[in-house]
Amino acid sequence: MKVTVIGCGRWGSFIAWYLNHIGQDVILYGREGSKHMSEFAMTRSNGMITLPESIILETNLSKALESEVIIISINSQGLRNVMKEIENYKVKNKKFVLCMKGIEIETGKRLSQIVNETLEENSSVSVWLGPGHVQNFYQGIPNCMVIDSECEADQQFLVTSFSSDLIRFYYGDDMIGSEVGAAAKNVIGIAAGMLDGMNLSSLKGALMSRGTREVARLIKAMGGKEQSAYGLCHLGDYEATVFSKYSHNRSYGEAFVKGQEYTNLAEGYYTVKAMIKLGLMYQVELPICEAVYTMLYENGDCKKVLQELFDRSLKKEF
Amino acid sequence: MKVTVIGCGRWGSFIAWYLNHIGQDVILYGREGSKHMSEFAMTRSNGMITLPESIILETNLSKALESEVIIISINSQGLRNVMKEIENYKVKNKKFVLCMKGIEIETGKRLSQIVNETLEENSSVSVWLGPGHVQNFYQGIPNCMVIDSECEADQQFLVTSFSSDLIRFYYGDDMIGSEVGAAAKNVIGIAAGMLDGMNLSSLKGALMSRGTREVARLIKAMGGKEQSAYGLCHLGDYEATVFSKYSHNRSYGEAFVKGQEYTNLAEGYYTVKAMIKLGLMYQVELPICEAVYTMLYENGDCKKVLQELFDRSLKKEF
Repeated sequence: MKVTVIGCGRWGSFIAWYLNHIGQDVILYGREGSKHMSEFAMTRSNGMITLPESIILETNLSKALESEVIIISINSQGLRNVMKEIENYKVKNKKFVLCMKGIEIETGKRLSQIVNETLEENSSVSVWLGPGHVQNFYQGIPNCMVIDSECEADQQFLVTSFSSDLIRFYYGDDMIGSEVGAAAKNVIGIAAGMLDGMNLSSLKGALMSRGTREVARLIKAMGGKEQSAYGLCHLGDYEATVFSKYSHNRSYGEAFVKGQEYTNLAEGYYTVKAMIKLGLMYQVELPICEAVYTMLYENGDCKKVLQELFDRSLKKEF
Repeated sequence: MKVTVIGCGRWGSFIAWYLNHIGQDVILYGREGSKHMSEFAMTRSNGMITLPESIILETNLSKALESEVIIISINSQGLRNVMKEIENYKVKNKKFVLCMKGIEIETGKRLSQIVNETLEENSSVSVWLGPGHVQNFYQGIPNCMVIDSECEADQQFLVTSFSSDLIRFYYGDDMIGSEVGAAAKNVIGIAAGMLDGMNLSSLKGALMSRGTREVARLIKAMGGKEQSAYGLCHLGDYEATVFSKYSHNRSYGEAFVKGQEYTNLAEGYYTVKAMIKLGLMYQVELPICEAVYTMLYENGDCKKVLQELFDRSLKKEF
């Protein structure tokens, strides 16, 4: 099967490697002249993984869109623009798969909703989410992930085609919960890094319990299933986010409270804005998201904000 | 207020230190000649914490039972015997508080049920559970914990009397969920150590998601609240168990799969037996507990057992 991966960052290039590894025909698309694409064109490597010659590097979007399955893995806030470009080609009968985590800040929309707005005939949108770090997979360490979709047939097709000994896919059954949960975990990851940076790592237990709780409440208010917050898309991703040295979001939170610079993309930095918007739209209290937002955007004193969060007079847990 | 702590191991001695620290009159009880008690009698220290002179070290059980609040922190399988000893003194108007995590293997009973069998007039039993490591608390790093009770008035009394800047107590409202969740987390801790020992740490994300799920199912079948598995007593304790270098259970699991010796008490080693019993009693599938049991008690090949767990054909997550 021909699969195109749009986006050649850390995840996009890994997915291209993985799908090639399990025997698919893979095209990796990146913009001409983009840093990552140039690197791959010259060395086939980004310093983390090396792409075999059998993966086609493509900078022509029209050609890239010829594949049956189009996987997109870019920064969330850039998705709408990419979809506008793709719309120009009026492609039909495509299975779009989003392998990215976020919520649109302007609208509070889930990423699959953005794709849906421009879908042509007989196309569907699915999401590929859950835990795992590129570095671990590349070393051969397996993990469980989730594919969720609005189209059951395509979901089944994707799970069957993409499963392997390295990645075991579960079937998601709640697009709202899967997408919101996956996006929100990056905010929890930033909060975890903040605790690490303030030598309060042992509070990450409480963070996990309270974090899943507030995300579950939001998912429910949005019409999804509360329990999705406890699934692979959110809680199941905490190892990779709340505890891992590889997590950009956790590292960013830690650097932030220490007053250090951090240059990698931390999606949670944007997602937290969208979470605040969703909290207002759906009238759900999100104390952890609000605390992170206050620190990142309102110059809140980290120690004071975290102390207030700890002191919240919640008598009962649930 | 006079408080007695029965048990002078790692947690018991910390609790004595903590309650003294927040201004209570504390008696620490241990058997005459016990290793820990002798150590404290000679040096006031166990190498981890140092007890101030104002804490009374007591080896006479009758005197120890004079306090209004009796906290018990010993190994779970030894609780029934200690309660038999206490029964001889026919003490009344006591608030018993269990600060320990386990299930009786023989009967599948929760620890509060064992205490309840011997309670005299006007006495109650509560549990003090949740995350936190002695080493961290002793360094002044705060955490959130839970007090649950069958007696609302005593619960409120205990939460109010014991809360401080170092430990913030939440009110539990599900004794079944709190106790079963707290006990079960030690089994998940062993499983986490096994993953660490096999260089599969990144699967701890899936372990958290699937582990909470099976414990939630069991709690529900026993008549408790499913969501308790996601509270501080279980999920909230994962940081301290699934990820911490201090966890005896995690360390034990890691040593086990590496074929190394490990001598500290790992409660999960006993709890897993009780979990298997509960699974049978309540007809609940507990695949993670069963896998741990197979490895610890039935000489199961670790790699094979974990592979089978990973391969389980669960199509949907929930």
